[in-house]
Amino acid sequence: MTENITRPTLIVDLDKVETNIINMLDKSLKQGVQLVPHFKTHQSKLIGELFRIRGIQAITVSSVQMAEYFADAGWKDITIAFPFNRLETGAINVLVEKGVRLKLLVTDIDTVRYLSNNLMSEVDLMIEIDTGDHRSGINANDADQIIETAEKIRNADNVNLYGIYCHSGNTYHADSTSDIQMIWSSSIKKMNEVKSILIAGGNDLKIRMGDTPGCVVVEDMKDIDEIGPGNFVFFDLVMNYLDVCKEEEIAVAVACPVVAKYEDRGEIIIHGGAVHFSKDHLFDKEENKFFGEIVIIEDRGWSSILPGAKLVSVSQEHGVLRVNKEMFDAIAIGDVIGVLPIHSCLTANLMGSYTSFEGKRIDHL
Amino acid sequence: MTENITRPTLIVDLDKVETNIINMLDKSLKQGVQLVPHFKTHQSKLIGELFRIRGIQAITVSSVQMAEYFADAGWKDITIAFPFNRLETGAINVLVEKGVRLKLLVTDIDTVRYLSNNLMSEVDLMIEIDTGDHRSGINANDADQIIETAEKIRNADNVNLYGIYCHSGNTYHADSTSDIQMIWSSSIKKMNEVKSILIAGGNDLKIRMGDTPGCVVVEDMKDIDEIGPGNFVFFDLVMNYLDVCKEEEIAVAVACPVVAKYEDRGEIIIHGGAVHFSKDHLFDKEENKFFGEIVIIEDRGWSSILPGAKLVSVSQEHGVLRVNKEMFDAIAIGDVIGVLPIHSCLTANLMGSYTSFEGKRIDHL
Repeated sequence: MTENITRPTLIVDLDKVETNIINMLDKSLKQGVQLVPHFKTHQSKLIGELFRIRGIQAITVSSVQMAEYFADAGWKDITIAFPFNRLETGAINVLVEKGVRLKLLVTDIDTVRYLSNNLMSEVDLMIEIDTGDHRSGINANDADQIIETAEKIRNADNVNLYGIYCHSGNTYHADSTSDIQMIWSSSIKKMNEVKSILIAGGNDLKIRMGDTPGCVVVEDMKDIDEIGPGNFVFFDLVMNYLDVCKEEEIAVAVACPVVAKYEDRGEIIIHGGAVHFSKDHLFDKEENKFFGEIVIIEDRGWSSILPGAKLVSVSQEHGVLRVNKEMFDAIAIGDVIGVLPIHSCLTANLMGSYTSFEGKRIDHL
Repeated sequence: MTENITRPTLIVDLDKVETNIINMLDKSLKQGVQLVPHFKTHQSKLIGELFRIRGIQAITVSSVQMAEYFADAGWKDITIAFPFNRLETGAINVLVEKGVRLKLLVTDIDTVRYLSNNLMSEVDLMIEIDTGDHRSGINANDADQIIETAEKIRNADNVNLYGIYCHSGNTYHADSTSDIQMIWSSSIKKMNEVKSILIAGGNDLKIRMGDTPGCVVVEDMKDIDEIGPGNFVFFDLVMNYLDVCKEEEIAVAVACPVVAKYEDRGEIIIHGGAVHFSKDHLFDKEENKFFGEIVIIEDRGWSSILPGAKLVSVSQEHGVLRVNKEMFDAIAIGDVIGVLPIHSCLTANLMGSYTSFEGKRIDHL
């Protein structure tokens, strides 16, 4: 398919996307949890349809802007998984008026009060709980603040306490899949302790857990109700290095023209840099930093990772591949090579659209 | 001006932009070199007009796509400062047909041959020379390849040898301004050696040097003809930490809503993450990594950097500020704070548009 590619182009393998969706959906059904997929990774109305056709009706996004974009595509049950920014209450009222059932995350009483005073009709709230990631959420050990927040929600107008939400983002820094399982096991225990305190004072509550590593790896989900992973739709090298996905499951690659070769340095320059991949990186076994792995783009797919080549440096538009002699000779100026991204969410966000093997352009917010 | 801001918003201080443009233009006039500004930093037709009104007619961009965008705004003399990607020859022919005089960079003979065979009318070529940055360009010590490339250009149809081009990107990794001066001094010497070899075989050639650190710091430019800096239009924290610009010269800041506070961790969460700032970072004096400095946005400007706060972590949408007690108490949920970017080029590329103090939206490619 590279014959029509002249510029850096984000290729999506829709077969792999469908398989990734089906696998996660099957797992959620088997585990008896509801999959509320996070759409922040693909940010695409068309890819959203691949979820809808499998029966998904409730989705997750990471900003009000993204909620607006997917509401335009007819999604009516949207969780905005970010500590609610009260300055966007006006935009929330507009969405509710359009018939969208929203779930917002809150982490403090004052925001609950603000919402209650300024919403024009009811939204669901989830209290975000921090079970160890220490990014956002009320600390799971701070029972007083959690109870106070829940009571405020239960006593306030226009807000309904739907559940508690946890993004165990620390799984991304785990050393092994058993580490990931331990993080989740500890998180699930804490979430259930929080829930047991809270349901004493009111109705039942849903527990939702977020991150892709845990949602893929963990086999015991009987004590939670919902999962909201996002990255699994494409996966990427971070997930592959964490043993969360197989290389073959990575569903996006950036096709990049080769523009220069330097034999003395064993380096090849591609058009593909920080404005295409972001500056996310990993370290190989020898602790060398790299920004992507190299594949050969084929008609309806791409090869396995080439062992003798790596993207070792990126500036705004330039990418530098370090290659062995064999790869140096095999890759020519004017070729188009594929780069598997370190972090598919940021790569898709930068590229701004996808191209399928059929050459169809697929939208991105 | 924050009263109308509800989401992460890239604010541009057009007064500072104008001052930065005038300073660089004055310097180029004083030094007797032509300023061919690089537009990859702002990527904005409207900001381009601030250059045009000062007499700039020739500009630099980093991709064919960017050349197309600025050609649409009436720019007729455009250097594409990237090793030419032959797959875009068709797009070059379209631009030439529209009356744009293009300067392309080449680093190998085969690309010259390809261009000569496939261009429909003449373009200028510059041979990119690598004087020590080791990203792209023919190694300055490789006289044979440089001479061979120049001869190929001189003997081929549809291509004119305009000059030699050097981006001393290694100045970005300098330890001091005297380091930057030494890098340029060495580069200028090598460029003139290359030129003296080449003019023996033909007409005069222009020497162009690229990077902002050198263009700002170096005072002796008598042996070069043109400069092509880009970042100086906004500057950023990288340039400030390199002592290339003063903090007051940084012309862009991202306004970010405050969404959560965690007193036990001394941390504040903002809406502003890797999809707004990129993951570029610096290290402070204690070797702590950070992703931006914090300022207070005022009606027509922003404060100096707040000493007790730093952006220490970013995920897709979340930013984590580490703050001292005083800052923790001073910043409230629902406030909008300003973040000076580490790397203004990547931040502007991600944000996709600017807002002026008058609330005007300013375009970005």
